[in-house]
Amino acid sequence: MDLLKNTLDGIKPAKNEPLANQIRARLDRLTKPPGSLGRLEEIALQYGLARGKADFPVPRKAMFVFCADHGVAAEGVSAFPPEVTYPMVKNFAGGGAAINVLCRQHDIDPVIVDMGVDHPLDDVEAVVSRKVSRGTRNFLHETAMTREQAIQCIETGIHLALAAARLEYGLLGTGEMGIGNSTAAAATLAAISGADTDQVVGAGTGVSESQLQHKSDVVKRALQLHQPDPDDAIAVLAAVGGFEIGGIAGFVLGAASLGIPVVVDGFIASAGALLAIRQSPAVKDYLMFSHRSAERGHQALLHFLDIRPLLDLDMRLGEGTGAALGMGLVDSAIHLYNEMATFDGAGVSGSA
Amino acid sequence: MDLLKNTLDGIKPAKNEPLANQIRARLDRLTKPPGSLGRLEEIALQYGLARGKADFPVPRKAMFVFCADHGVAAEGVSAFPPEVTYPMVKNFAGGGAAINVLCRQHDIDPVIVDMGVDHPLDDVEAVVSRKVSRGTRNFLHETAMTREQAIQCIETGIHLALAAARLEYGLLGTGEMGIGNSTAAAATLAAISGADTDQVVGAGTGVSESQLQHKSDVVKRALQLHQPDPDDAIAVLAAVGGFEIGGIAGFVLGAASLGIPVVVDGFIASAGALLAIRQSPAVKDYLMFSHRSAERGHQALLHFLDIRPLLDLDMRLGEGTGAALGMGLVDSAIHLYNEMATFDGAGVSGSA
Repeated sequence: MDLLKNTLDGIKPAKNEPLANQIRARLDRLTKPPGSLGRLEEIALQYGLARGKADFPVPRKAMFVFCADHGVAAEGVSAFPPEVTYPMVKNFAGGGAAINVLCRQHDIDPVIVDMGVDHPLDDVEAVVSRKVSRGTRNFLHETAMTREQAIQCIETGIHLALAAARLEYGLLGTGEMGIGNSTAAAATLAAISGADTDQVVGAGTGVSESQLQHKSDVVKRALQLHQPDPDDAIAVLAAVGGFEIGGIAGFVLGAASLGIPVVVDGFIASAGALLAIRQSPAVKDYLMFSHRSAERGHQALLHFLDIRPLLDLDMRLGEGTGAALGMGLVDSAIHLYNEMATFDGAGVSGSA
Repeated sequence: MDLLKNTLDGIKPAKNEPLANQIRARLDRLTKPPGSLGRLEEIALQYGLARGKADFPVPRKAMFVFCADHGVAAEGVSAFPPEVTYPMVKNFAGGGAAINVLCRQHDIDPVIVDMGVDHPLDDVEAVVSRKVSRGTRNFLHETAMTREQAIQCIETGIHLALAAARLEYGLLGTGEMGIGNSTAAAATLAAISGADTDQVVGAGTGVSESQLQHKSDVVKRALQLHQPDPDDAIAVLAAVGGFEIGGIAGFVLGAASLGIPVVVDGFIASAGALLAIRQSPAVKDYLMFSHRSAERGHQALLHFLDIRPLLDLDMRLGEGTGAALGMGLVDSAIHLYNEMATFDGAGVSGSA
């Protein structure tokens, strides 16, 4: 609990007008009309403010994929059986999943974290073992986890961010895997925002219309049972969250406290980010939301946080796939900031 | 003219239901819920249909940046003086422009083509010399070019696509540079679509509100003077187009005739694509529109062609910068298609 408290104390808003002006001035010296790179210029500015400097190299990048199982999957809320989480995590470890392909393309180191998969994974070398328990409890009947476990998830995420900083990663991504976790993310969002469950529950990996109604009912009944305090992110996480969602929340808090920007994936990763922002609103300055997922609840979550994500490609896979594409765009922004010629240097005169 | 006619004859719609089913079946075997990669799956499908095969490797990529000057720039329609085209082309040749940075990031070979810059460029080795003339005429007073020059532009573009095919490029991009060319693109779009000039004329590199009104008036008066037949793309190009716009039109036609997909940049490149589509609607099957430019007319053009572009990042630089980012996404789609494990191969069971 001290780690969490100290981390929260260490998060400062990334606002610094003199630094912002310095970064903007450099952007305006590059051989392009002012502002013509649009959101890539905004990204460079946000990145520099988060890092606290106007000189920043193209960063080393890592994608942390938090994996866990969910007791609520027993309610038939997913198109896939819970047994799929384990082989998919092995697929990550073996390099065959979508996230592996995109990480290779964009030179991102994937880090696969077992936060609570319902299967031993100690023998899988490429997986970082941080198992809190073998899956959460079924939150339709009891809280998903204890308050102690919720804090453990968050502090595990913070530890991983500290480790990433020691390895000199300057840009981090968050992804996830866990059958049932779009249900946990929807419940988390509904608990915090007060939104109607029909607005936050979506098809996930592809449930039918009748399953969708059932999934929405499950979330509604769980929230009626637990009624977590919407201002207490840890209580919400314990009641209806997931181990990977808590891990992401902690990871985001840790990274923000260290001034390392995090590119957030889709709905489930955003639910983790939401729990972090609820604990410390300044975290938002360090987050880049990569894409608008096709999962229904993501639209509601982005609206709740007043976020316009970078991409909108109808993706709904998770794993960090949207975040990996977003990191490619952040990379573009930083390359441009560092490598473009200036008007003076190129002998090009400015505007008329 | 024979080359143009033969090229048009060679363009076939990229429709093939058995092949489409083959590609879709392969996408559905990959370790992800069906359709969960959203538009990346659509891109892989479009790419395979354009290439005419279900097995396609990650392609070699080239970005063709067509450059030219514009007589209408004398009317003060741009925030930059026409003298800026030449040093910016030299900047491309020297590797210092935004497009160079993004091409390096995405492993795209840049090809800089002088279609009609108002300055000798023979001494600049990295520039492909295809100069039609030293800039177009001022289309406020006379046609921008002769019909013969319009055909020369288009056939030059076709030739370059043939050269790209011989070099085994499997994915092409189009960009441009030319002070004044957003005025020519707006006039081209208005001539073909019949749209009001106020809907297609935008701030370009950043003109003031009063300059914007003047720019719109220039386009309106030019169209009243020339009244080109909207069904005759060559007449439109000759009346109010530009050498680079014609080059892009031909390049797109040539690539389509060879089954090579082209990623189109923003407003000016899209105006070239529009001229190609007007000559052969099937060209559209081979085009991927990379982004929605912040330039006002691009929205109207995309709407006219019923296109939803891949990206929307408020960019308005041109050069091919949006196309380079789009090519990164196409690369992602093809990497995923080729490199992801299948459910069988990874020992992951499908949906419940």
